Amino acid sequence: MSEASLNRRVILSSRPKGIPQAEHFSIDEVPVASLAEGQFLIKMLYWSVDPAMRGWANDAPNYLPPVALGSAMRAFAVGEIVDSRHSGYKQGELVSGKFGWQTLALSDGSDVDRKVTETDLSPSLALGVLGLNGITAYYGLLDICDPRPGETVVVSTAAGAVGSAVGQIASIKGARTVAITSSRAKVNICLQQFGFDHAISYLEDNVDAAIRETCPDGVDCYFDNTCGPISDAVLMHLAVGARITVCGTAAFADWNPIPVGPRVNRQLLVARARMQGFLVLDHKHRFASAVEELANWVRAGLLNTEEQILEGIEAAPGSISMLYESKNTGKLLVKP
Amino acid sequence: MSEASLNRRVILSSRPKGIPQAEHFSIDEVPVASLAEGQFLIKMLYWSVDPAMRGWANDAPNYLPPVALGSAMRAFAVGEIVDSRHSGYKQGELVSGKFGWQTLALSDGSDVDRKVTETDLSPSLALGVLGLNGITAYYGLLDICDPRPGETVVVSTAAGAVGSAVGQIASIKGARTVAITSSRAKVNICLQQFGFDHAISYLEDNVDAAIRETCPDGVDCYFDNTCGPISDAVLMHLAVGARITVCGTAAFADWNPIPVGPRVNRQLLVARARMQGFLVLDHKHRFASAVEELANWVRAGLLNTEEQILEGIEAAPGSISMLYESKNTGKLLVKP
Repeated sequence: MSEASLNRRVILSSRPKGIPQAEHFSIDEVPVASLAEGQFLIKMLYWSVDPAMRGWANDAPNYLPPVALGSAMRAFAVGEIVDSRHSGYKQGELVSGKFGWQTLALSDGSDVDRKVTETDLSPSLALGVLGLNGITAYYGLLDICDPRPGETVVVSTAAGAVGSAVGQIASIKGARTVAITSSRAKVNICLQQFGFDHAISYLEDNVDAAIRETCPDGVDCYFDNTCGPISDAVLMHLAVGARITVCGTAAFADWNPIPVGPRVNRQLLVARARMQGFLVLDHKHRFASAVEELANWVRAGLLNTEEQILEGIEAAPGSISMLYESKNTGKLLVKP
Repeated sequence: MSEASLNRRVILSSRPKGIPQAEHFSIDEVPVASLAEGQFLIKMLYWSVDPAMRGWANDAPNYLPPVALGSAMRAFAVGEIVDSRHSGYKQGELVSGKFGWQTLALSDGSDVDRKVTETDLSPSLALGVLGLNGITAYYGLLDICDPRPGETVVVSTAAGAVGSAVGQIASIKGARTVAITSSRAKVNICLQQFGFDHAISYLEDNVDAAIRETCPDGVDCYFDNTCGPISDAVLMHLAVGARITVCGTAAFADWNPIPVGPRVNRQLLVARARMQGFLVLDHKHRFASAVEELANWVRAGLLNTEEQILEGIEAAPGSISMLYESKNTGKLLVKP
């Protein structure tokens, strides 16, 4: 069997409770079947590491079924088509989709999110600012928060793949932007690389006081990737008519039982505020137009991104927990 | 001094913590000044008793400043103009507004919500289904929930002045309606008088199981007047794309400190649901068109209402706590 037809996979070998750790995965090699009519073979260039993978690995109700034990971990990836018997996909084309943590994947096109046609830019961007992260920032911010010029937009996990794009898109729309992130180093990245007007370290600053100081007229928009004490503090400072995008809940690894916290009803009532859950996969039919605008902003230097690329398949098993320990800087990828 | 110029008032005499009780009020009599140019005198026909009065009596941040100790309790009322030196208001006209718990009020028009022109209907309705309660139901439901034919609408405090109107408006719009109320007697009122398709007693039924049973396709719209355990149960059954109007927080008398409960973020995310605070006073410019449609529904027999009228000024001090003990049936009023 040639190396080209040997598929190396990172499989989910035991069921985590909470955040998946390296010990919950193992690596194997399996042969790839030959192409059937209507199929094509993708050689992966980059694997994505996303917070959503925690939920996929857990055996809990979610918007997707849990990953079966013994199968390749579900993951987004970008790859090159190296062989094809499908009339719609040609050898040499790049595609992104939910191909999993494996080096080779047979596809009939159903797991393809899109063809990656912006070949002047790195294909890795298709997993970040030109992929679900960027599209999440784009529609999550513009559909729900819809910031107006001069409004104040607060973003949690602001140095991350989604948050950094949210801040920059809000700036493009003329809003004032306030980042909430972990370390002082990330505060500096938010200010210098992602152009936030202010940045708060929830590890070193008093978040409540810092929000009060940086948002004297209140928070018009809050893009919430965290839930938990950070969001509790932001909600005490909502401006009348505030909008909150509920995009992620990184502060809690486990929702069974549901964590308790201050009830939001009174804050929503007093501010006549809106809080709305956002799931990017609802918007597939609009991905292309978002990517087109995001790519133009990247080319124009208005949308910076930071990638942290882990080398080699062996780095994948421990990568999800890095997100929850704030050990990554920008979009976390694995180059298998 | 003639009786006509003696104003009997229910004044806030001590500051309650939580729900105002009879002991926090006292009754006095003060003379009314003679009319200045641009003023008119209103003789009250009905005083309103509303959950919002709890917040007004407390010394806590709210959308209105707290009522000063020693002054007439802030309240909505409807009355007849008995004398006027104002070109826009004539003797004999009816007006509703924030005139307070007093028998006579001088006004320059600034505290008038509207002239009550539907003289074929009882003026008391101007404090209920044709007043802020009905308008709250109308815009709170239609602006935020916007129920579609066949969708399922759940309403808490469903036998109350707002909830009963919400259910009937939802029915008019073709939705399935599910009431949550306290006693079995109120369950029957919800079913028979207000036309809910189903009604749940949170005192006698298991709310979680009853929601599951009556909302097999999930809850599309939830009009939330309570917060607390009832709402926690409803939120576990949201349909994808659900809308929640946050209108009141009757389950909690005190928000300092903020009560804790299960965090809502995950439910909002999984259902891509929207939760939005509603304050009727934001919509003053649209009151007239709501009242016109509500009055037509009343005349057509599509919008029933129940009023409980307490006789005499002495009944006012203990009336607010009746709302929080679910002792009222329908809109609670005082006839001074």
